[in-house]
Amino acid sequence: MSRADEILEPMWRTIDSIVDEEALRRRLDAGERLRIKYGVDLTAPDLHLGHAVNLWLMRHLQDQGHTVVFLLGDLTTQVGDPTGKNETRPVLSPDAIEANAQAFLDQVSIVLDTDPAVFEVRRNSEWFGRMPISELLGLFSMTTHAQLMARDMFRERIAAGREIALHELAYPVLQGYDSFAMRSDVTIVGSDQLFNEMMGRQYQQRLGMRPQSIITTVITPGLDGGPKQSMSLGNYVALTDTPADKFGKIMSLSDDLAGVWASAYTSLDDRELARIREDVKAGGEVARDAKLTIAGAVVERYHGTAAAAREREAFLNVFSGRADPKDIRDVTISDRALTALDLLEAVRPDLSRSARRRLLAQNAVRVDGRLLGDPNEQVTVTDGSIIRSGRRAWARVTVRAGR
Amino acid sequence: MSRADEILEPMWRTIDSIVDEEALRRRLDAGERLRIKYGVDLTAPDLHLGHAVNLWLMRHLQDQGHTVVFLLGDLTTQVGDPTGKNETRPVLSPDAIEANAQAFLDQVSIVLDTDPAVFEVRRNSEWFGRMPISELLGLFSMTTHAQLMARDMFRERIAAGREIALHELAYPVLQGYDSFAMRSDVTIVGSDQLFNEMMGRQYQQRLGMRPQSIITTVITPGLDGGPKQSMSLGNYVALTDTPADKFGKIMSLSDDLAGVWASAYTSLDDRELARIREDVKAGGEVARDAKLTIAGAVVERYHGTAAAAREREAFLNVFSGRADPKDIRDVTISDRALTALDLLEAVRPDLSRSARRRLLAQNAVRVDGRLLGDPNEQVTVTDGSIIRSGRRAWARVTVRAGR
Repeated sequence: MSRADEILEPMWRTIDSIVDEEALRRRLDAGERLRIKYGVDLTAPDLHLGHAVNLWLMRHLQDQGHTVVFLLGDLTTQVGDPTGKNETRPVLSPDAIEANAQAFLDQVSIVLDTDPAVFEVRRNSEWFGRMPISELLGLFSMTTHAQLMARDMFRERIAAGREIALHELAYPVLQGYDSFAMRSDVTIVGSDQLFNEMMGRQYQQRLGMRPQSIITTVITPGLDGGPKQSMSLGNYVALTDTPADKFGKIMSLSDDLAGVWASAYTSLDDRELARIREDVKAGGEVARDAKLTIAGAVVERYHGTAAAAREREAFLNVFSGRADPKDIRDVTISDRALTALDLLEAVRPDLSRSARRRLLAQNAVRVDGRLLGDPNEQVTVTDGSIIRSGRRAWARVTVRAGR
Repeated sequence: MSRADEILEPMWRTIDSIVDEEALRRRLDAGERLRIKYGVDLTAPDLHLGHAVNLWLMRHLQDQGHTVVFLLGDLTTQVGDPTGKNETRPVLSPDAIEANAQAFLDQVSIVLDTDPAVFEVRRNSEWFGRMPISELLGLFSMTTHAQLMARDMFRERIAAGREIALHELAYPVLQGYDSFAMRSDVTIVGSDQLFNEMMGRQYQQRLGMRPQSIITTVITPGLDGGPKQSMSLGNYVALTDTPADKFGKIMSLSDDLAGVWASAYTSLDDRELARIREDVKAGGEVARDAKLTIAGAVVERYHGTAAAAREREAFLNVFSGRADPKDIRDVTISDRALTALDLLEAVRPDLSRSARRRLLAQNAVRVDGRLLGDPNEQVTVTDGSIIRSGRRAWARVTVRAGR
C-alpha cells in the first residue's frame, strides 16, 4: 500500500471523484505538505452535516500534516456565487461580513484543527482589493462566454427565462483565480462547485502554476428525501444544533435514507453499516434501533459518549410513550455539582421535601438514565442533561453560568 | 425657428437618428453648454471621411460654443470593443498607446477646434485606474446577460460558432460608465455604437445623472460599394491622404455612389447635389464631371481651393490621355519660392538651359494649371504641386524642408 493509498483509504467512503488523482497521489507519495483550499462566501453560516463531510476529509488530511487554507471570500461575498434559486444576494455591510467570518471560524473549528501549523486563514480581498481593473480584464480575456455557458446552472437559468447579471458570470473567474493566488494544491468540494474549481485549474495553468487536484464528495439527501440538505429548505442537521436536536432530527429520517446517512455522517465501520442496511429493511423496532445507532454515532462524534447515551435515553422514553415531548420541561440551574436532593428540589419545586425523598427511595429518579438513590449523593449535570423524576415527569437542564 | 432647429438644421443631412431628441432640443433651446462625448480606443488611428462625418457635426456644435470631450480610451483599449472580424486584439504597450493618442489628436485637429474653451481631453484610466474591483462588480450587477446578448454583434458571433471572451462582454459596461464619469450630454456615433451608448444612458440614470442624447449618423458605403469605409478593407479615403490621393480615390468611385458621397462628405448645397445626382445618371463625361465636382469639394474642404484646382488639372490631364499616370515623375525640391527657370531646372534636368527657356517661350510650362512665361517670374510651389513641362512631361513636387 503506497503512502497515498493509506491516506486516501478512509476517505473513499465520502469521495465522489478526484480530478487529477494522478497528481494528488504523486504528491502524497512524495510526502509534500499540501495546501487545501477551503473557500467560503461570508453569508451567515449554518454548517450542516453535509458540509461536515468535506470538513472531516480536510481534518483527516490535517492529521497527516497538510494545511487547510480557510479562504474567507470577503470580496466575492459582495458578488455571490449565482445559484438557481436567488437572482440577487443582499449586500452585506462590512460589520456583517466580519460577524459572519467569526461565526464561520467558530463553526469550522468544531471539526477542523485550528493549530496554526495546519490552519491558515486568508481573505480574497488581499489580492482582489489591490488588483487593477486592467488585470481583472486580463483574467476575463482567458475565459469565453461559451465556456461559462457550459455551467449547468447558467444554462438552466437561461432555459427558464431567468436573468443572469453580468457580475454573476464573473464569479467563476474570481473563484478560479483564488486557487492561483492562495497556491491551492487540492480542494474538497461538493460537485456543484466542480465547474468553478475547474476554472481554478485553468487559471493556475495559464499563470504558470501546477493546477490543483479537486476532490468532489457525495451529496447526501435532505432529511425529507430532497436532493440535498439545504439551509433554505430547513431539512438539515446543523453542526450547532443541540445534541437533542441532532438526535431527534436523525430519528425523523426516513428508513430508506438511513444507510446513506450512516455512511456519510458517522464513522461506523463497514460491518456496522451493513447491519444498519439490513435492519432498516426489517422495519418496526429493528429499524428504529438502527436509527438509534446512527443518531447516537452522530451525537457522539460531535458531543461525546455521554451526550449520545443521554439523548438515546431521552428519545427512548419519549418514543416508548413513557414521556411525551411536551412533558419534558426546561429547568435552569446555576450549579453543575449538587446533591441529588438539591437537584430534585430544582426540578420538582411542586413537591414537598418529603415527597422528593420518597421518589428517591422508590428508585424513580434518573439523571441521563443513571439511577439516583442516596439523597446526599453528589451529582454532576451538564447542559441538556435529562432528569426523570417519577413516571411521566421529565426535565431538561440548562446550566446558567454561576457567579 | 427655435434655437434647437437652427442648430440642428444643417446637421440633418448626415444624422440618421437621435435618441432622446426631446431632451437635446430642450437643452439647446435653453442655451446650455453641452458636453459632447467623443470616445476612441487608442489603436493606430487612420481616420477616414466616414469618421469625419461625425467630426464635422461636432465641429458645428463647437462653433455654437459646445465642448467636445475627446475621451482617450487608454483603459478600454486594453480590452478592445469586440467586433465581428477579430476575436482578439493585440495588447499595446504603454508607448504605443501614447503614440496613438498623439496621432489621434493630430488627425482630429484636422476637423475639430482644439481651443481649450471647446475641447477637453480625458482618459478613462482616470476613473477606471483607481476603481476598486468591488465597484466594477457593482456596475456589472446592473446589467444582465440577456441584455448583452441583445447586441447584434454578440448574437451573430454566437450564431457563427465563434467565441466571445468574457472581457468583451464587459466592454459595453465600461463604455457605458464612461458617459457617467465624463458627464456626457450628447454623443455622436455610428449606429454600430448605439448599443454601447444606450448602456451609457442606463448607467447615467442608475447613478443619478441625466442621460445623454445619442445622435447616430449615416454610414456611407466604401469606395468599392462595400457596406462601409473600413481601414481593414482599404476602401476608404483617409483624412491624412494627400490631396492627389483623395482626388484620385474619389474619381474611382462608382457612379451610383456619387450622390451619397456628395451629400455626406461635402458641403455642396442642395441644388448642386441634385445636379450631381442627375449628371451621374447621364454617364460619360457628364458623370465624370460630376465626380470632379465631388472630388474637388472634398479636397477643398481639407486642403483649400488651390489644392482642389491643382488636383483637378492633374486628373484631367491623366484622364484625357495627355498624360499617363506613370509619366508623372516625383521631384523633390528644397525651396518653396524660386524663379520659373530654376524650377524648370529642377524638374527637367534632362534639358539644356536653352531648351528650358524655349519651353517657357512656347507657353508649354504650367504649375497647377497656371501658365508660366517669364523665366524670372517668382513661383511658389507646395507639396503636391503639378508641373507640366512640355506635351507629356509631368512632375509632382515634394518640398524638402530647407536648412
